[in-house]
Amino acid sequence: MRALVCAREPELVRDHQEPARRDGEALIGLRIAGICHTDLELSRGYMGFRGVLGHEFVGEVLDAGARMLVGKRVVADINAGCGECAHCKANDAHHCPARTVLGILGRDGAMADRFTVPERCLVEVPDSVPDDAAVFAEPLAAALHVIDDVPDVPGPIVVLGDGKLGQLIARALVGSGREVVVVGHHEEKLALAREGGAHALLESELGSDLDGSPAIVEATGRAAGIALALRLVRPRGTVVLKTTVAGRTDVDLSPVVINELTVLGSRCGDLSRAIELLTRGAADPTPLIQARYSLDDAAAAFRRAADPGALKVLIDAGG
Amino acid sequence: MRALVCAREPELVRDHQEPARRDGEALIGLRIAGICHTDLELSRGYMGFRGVLGHEFVGEVLDAGARMLVGKRVVADINAGCGECAHCKANDAHHCPARTVLGILGRDGAMADRFTVPERCLVEVPDSVPDDAAVFAEPLAAALHVIDDVPDVPGPIVVLGDGKLGQLIARALVGSGREVVVVGHHEEKLALAREGGAHALLESELGSDLDGSPAIVEATGRAAGIALALRLVRPRGTVVLKTTVAGRTDVDLSPVVINELTVLGSRCGDLSRAIELLTRGAADPTPLIQARYSLDDAAAAFRRAADPGALKVLIDAGG
Repeated sequence: MRALVCAREPELVRDHQEPARRDGEALIGLRIAGICHTDLELSRGYMGFRGVLGHEFVGEVLDAGARMLVGKRVVADINAGCGECAHCKANDAHHCPARTVLGILGRDGAMADRFTVPERCLVEVPDSVPDDAAVFAEPLAAALHVIDDVPDVPGPIVVLGDGKLGQLIARALVGSGREVVVVGHHEEKLALAREGGAHALLESELGSDLDGSPAIVEATGRAAGIALALRLVRPRGTVVLKTTVAGRTDVDLSPVVINELTVLGSRCGDLSRAIELLTRGAADPTPLIQARYSLDDAAAAFRRAADPGALKVLIDAGG
Repeated sequence: MRALVCAREPELVRDHQEPARRDGEALIGLRIAGICHTDLELSRGYMGFRGVLGHEFVGEVLDAGARMLVGKRVVADINAGCGECAHCKANDAHHCPARTVLGILGRDGAMADRFTVPERCLVEVPDSVPDDAAVFAEPLAAALHVIDDVPDVPGPIVVLGDGKLGQLIARALVGSGREVVVVGHHEEKLALAREGGAHALLESELGSDLDGSPAIVEATGRAAGIALALRLVRPRGTVVLKTTVAGRTDVDLSPVVINELTVLGSRCGDLSRAIELLTRGAADPTPLIQARYSLDDAAAAFRRAADPGALKVLIDAGG
């Protein structure tokens, strides 16, 4: 079968071995996968990952121990916990020290004709949610997780970054009833954020009116964004870090102490909340789709996704 | 009068101009001052401070608008807010953007025969608390402020750093009924921490048993301490930053996102809580006193305080 394997650069292997479904796992047939910034980092050597890439997907259950799952259209939580440790027993597989993570850590991912996922990680997609929206469920869940961290303060939440992560967080927050200001570098992307219901302005337009925001979500993907967030947030305010900057970051942390800031890291979220938001139509991520390639052209899709400023690039198994 | 002025290096000026008490201020006569790590940084150019150093003190009110203050033995909150802004009106002068800070920012400090402090910043010292304990009120208040940030989790709180800041935080936490493990580099200082009621161990002895601590207080004064804290804390755990590292820090922040940590900056505290703790005898900071100099020998006191591993060095106005 076809599978996009992370070697030195992503390479479509045509005769990849079929995955063996283990007890408790479902065999999934890919419908659509999305390329995430993390996929680009993994393909450059981040975390030393070798194997099939892909953790944003919508697919169909081809086989499972629980027969009633077969034929369902699904997305999945990408964190597969051991089920035995204190974290897993506290329902927090996201922090299980022995976890595998789909297409990221110790487990082949979704950019293949077929792949396996633990049945307990699956979330059903209602018929009313099209594939092009459902494929955003994983990053949208991560975006919604920000809401858990942002205090319920009056006034807007500032999202730094107008890339695909910032755009999705803005839509998740707006869809959850919060007022949002997106700060970015690209007029056309700020226009997209405005279409999604957010206020938006260029970083160069940042005036003193934004100084002292109570809550800032850092989603620039760059270390400089962290420094900007620490500078813009008001004393005793909250900065939510979404950007995983691989390696060391050179940043002045003294504002954290002097202004007694709360800095919160935020990673994965609850897939069922994302599907619920999409089902309600409270947020539409599909305007963030920039390009679509067939799995056969997946290497080209990765090159496109690596273009500066690229939004979401999809890989279609049937395309 | 005598005053320790921050120039290129601290220099005792013998004929310094007497301070002019303004409306709402008290004129204080110094009894004892303590040298803090921040004083050393300020004397090396941190924040560009020029003027009289000193923010840890116990003194006597020599003159005040409120006559009943005269003659009282006092300590003081070092943050003097404008009294008008939203922060001040919310009783949070610590974050007033127009604040002056005694001996740190826009206001001459306490290492002089006489100095002024806003009357509203004063806290009375009961007769039962000796000068040698009261002089610790300001850093002890900052240490107690950590308790507001540390979640009420079972098991010990880990304090990184066996220097004077870590020692004082450990005593504040122990005095407040918390179990504490101090991690440091010096056997004799770990022994001192144990005398103060904490567990203590060398960083080289850190085993897997401490990995995954729910709450870590970083008080090493070094950027490497921040990295260690981010590595030792468990997923979803809390790291309280007490160290103000001047300038940029080169640190891997990815554990904050991957492990969804909460990083909290913590600076100044409530002086009346510190005095209350000292009055109850719940914590005794006086074993941390390493040396005592007269104000005449203040330059020598600063050199001693800058010795690697020095604990608290006091400056005695009457000595």
